[in-house]
Amino acid sequence: MSPSTPSSTSSPSPSPAISPSSPSATAPPSTAPVSVLGLGMMGTALATALVRAGHPVTVWNRTPARTGPLVAQGATPAGTPADAVTASPLVVLCLLDNANVHEVLDTLGDTVSGRTLVNLTNGTPAQARELAARAAERGARYIDGGIMAVPQMIAGPHAYVLYSGDEEAYRAHRATLAAFGGTTWAGTDPGLAALHDLGLLTGMYGMVIGVLQAFALVRTENIRAADFAEPLVTWIGAMLAGAPEWARAIDSGEHLTDVSSIAVNQAAFPNFLAAYRDQGISGELFAPFQKLLDRAMAEGHAEDGLSRLAELLRDE
Amino acid sequence: MSPSTPSSTSSPSPSPAISPSSPSATAPPSTAPVSVLGLGMMGTALATALVRAGHPVTVWNRTPARTGPLVAQGATPAGTPADAVTASPLVVLCLLDNANVHEVLDTLGDTVSGRTLVNLTNGTPAQARELAARAAERGARYIDGGIMAVPQMIAGPHAYVLYSGDEEAYRAHRATLAAFGGTTWAGTDPGLAALHDLGLLTGMYGMVIGVLQAFALVRTENIRAADFAEPLVTWIGAMLAGAPEWARAIDSGEHLTDVSSIAVNQAAFPNFLAAYRDQGISGELFAPFQKLLDRAMAEGHAEDGLSRLAELLRDE
Ligand SMILES: NC(=O)c1ccc[n+]([C@@H]2O[C@H](COP(=O)([O-])OP(=O)(O)OC[C@H]3O[C@@H](n4cnc5c(N)ncnc54)[C@H](OP(=O)(O)O)[C@@H]3O)[C@@H](O)[C@H]2O)c1
Ligand SMILES: NC(=O)c1ccc[n+]([C@@H]2O[C@H](COP(=O)([O-])OP(=O)(O)OC[C@H]3O[C@@H](n4cnc5c(N)ncnc54)[C@H](OP(=O)(O)O)[C@@H]3O)[C@@H](O)[C@H]2O)c1
Repeated sequence: MSPSTPSSTSSPSPSPAISPSSPSATAPPSTAPVSVLGLGMMGTALATALVRAGHPVTVWNRTPARTGPLVAQGATPAGTPADAVTASPLVVLCLLDNANVHEVLDTLGDTVSGRTLVNLTNGTPAQARELAARAAERGARYIDGGIMAVPQMIAGPHAYVLYSGDEEAYRAHRATLAAFGGTTWAGTDPGLAALHDLGLLTGMYGMVIGVLQAFALVRTENIRAADFAEPLVTWIGAMLAGAPEWARAIDSGEHLTDVSSIAVNQAAFPNFLAAYRDQGISGELFAPFQKLLDRAMAEGHAEDGLSRLAELLRDE
Repeated sequence: MSPSTPSSTSSPSPSPAISPSSPSATAPPSTAPVSVLGLGMMGTALATALVRAGHPVTVWNRTPARTGPLVAQGATPAGTPADAVTASPLVVLCLLDNANVHEVLDTLGDTVSGRTLVNLTNGTPAQARELAARAAERGARYIDGGIMAVPQMIAGPHAYVLYSGDEEAYRAHRATLAAFGGTTWAGTDPGLAALHDLGLLTGMYGMVIGVLQAFALVRTENIRAADFAEPLVTWIGAMLAGAPEWARAIDSGEHLTDVSSIAVNQAAFPNFLAAYRDQGISGELFAPFQKLLDRAMAEGHAEDGLSRLAELLRDE
């Protein structure tokens, strides 16, 4: 993974539009206390990274037993979210979803006033904006974040976290947040980290859908998925290199192609759905793609490349 | 792109189960005549590669005007498919779909007897088996193929073609077929090239769906797709490296994970569909993925990794 722009914490920047800022002179030393609310797989990885970086860490989890491994490493358990928040000026939240974050915020009363909340729970731009407004009402600074890593990658060279919202708070705490991996600033609109995060994960989910369907298909003829993985990864990787070209087509609105037209793909795709059916696997994940190709043909885009489909997704 | 097994024509083998065979001693010299039926974008690239490799090439296309560029390079135009077939012992077909191939075969009568048909039209395993049987009835040898390349890649270092069917004919003509790129043998079942081809392309289509949806999403906030392409490609590429692990889970049936559970993904995915809606783009390509995640939860697979979904696709 190579960063597109230099960053003092070696984060692959998700976009030149997203400029990593340099750590502020007011960055706290690594002895700054941090509280972590939520010790699921990801919260545990985050809290562990903070402990290892030398921070006094206070942890809270709905199911108290899950704090055990962190406490064994030196973290302090808190009996309630409010106790955890009171312990540190910087509070990291990593719960299952933002409905949980709202539930926890409801129990915090005024304890959050003057503190910085960094919410790394997966959510939408709209949810981030709503939480930012709610935090502001309580006198808290709010940073929303999107974690570009699985828990095992946290603190490793390829992990990075997208942040957006209160830029002053971000600058003040960036050195602490760097314990998780690269730090990438997405903008002051609190929704931007979530937008980029969902965009990147959308790309990943598409790839996952394709890979799992491919494995399911070849397995029907007793081909081992492990044997098919290498050519599959190589092929997808090679085709993925076309993404910057589709991007240029999308930005310019010029989709004419001499590579692989909507017409050719629309003509071939029934073979895929037929093969899934013939081989006894479900076509449910790919049926909508055929419909979209059909619509593209009906709307006169036969000669365009597949990049045209991105525009059709915008004006259904 | 690195081949998984060595091959004398440098083809990345799609599977150790698929063994590239070495060119037979009876391989014809590059002066062996070849006929190409179908001069669309792909057929033109194939015929051009044969001309450049020194073969006498006869070409036929339904719309005769499209033979112009090939004739200018030295190919001989044929007035009918039967004329083209009569001109060469090896006949390559590359039409839009296999219904077209059947139509053309209907016009060939006995001209195909004793010849080798190499059908590189995209199709299903069942279609390949049917065409093989039909060719056999007419006394022709049949090889089915799947082209792992876009036309611009033909004859280049990364292009390869999967072949299956009549192995003796394949060995006899492999040196000629190597003009297109790597040659990879998928097996004597004529359907196997199509199976592998559709598997690889399924993976690609999933990736394409993800990338186009991601571009559509970020464009709603006026982020340029070109700026988002680099982090997107980097992220998908990094996550794609997990495919061999999913493959092992699928082969073994052991899907328990400590990385990213069905439960976490199922909880997060409504955020994706909500964000698509909020931002005014269609969620049609991803709605079935939510349903599949919901089904996985309902069937008790909360703790499993996403690889479990490949099994659910097999037993709807
Ligand atoms: N895992 C990944 O690969 C990954 C990657 C990037 C981002 N994320 C995001 O990180 C977040 C956490 O994921 P995870 O993998 O850590 O999930 P997880 O292992 O399922 O943990 C979920 C956490 O949320 C807590 N929780 C759930 N409902 C709650 C409620 N009503 N009130 C208070 N706490 C509640 C759980 O507490 P209990 O222990 O009491 O159940 C647990 O601490 C999610 O938003 C996820 O999308 C995960
Ligand atoms: N393009 C790619 O990236 C790619 C990659 C791998 C595989 N393929 C496969 O290669 C095959 C050809 O693709 P392409 O890109 O060359 O498509 P194309 O440019 O649309 O060409 C289609 C060809 O099929 C002919 N055809 C259509 N209907 C016919 C009929 N009823 N009878 C006789 N000929 C007919 C066309 O003749 P006219 O000129 O008269 O219309 C033309 O020669 C497809 O199966 C495709 O899936 C393509």
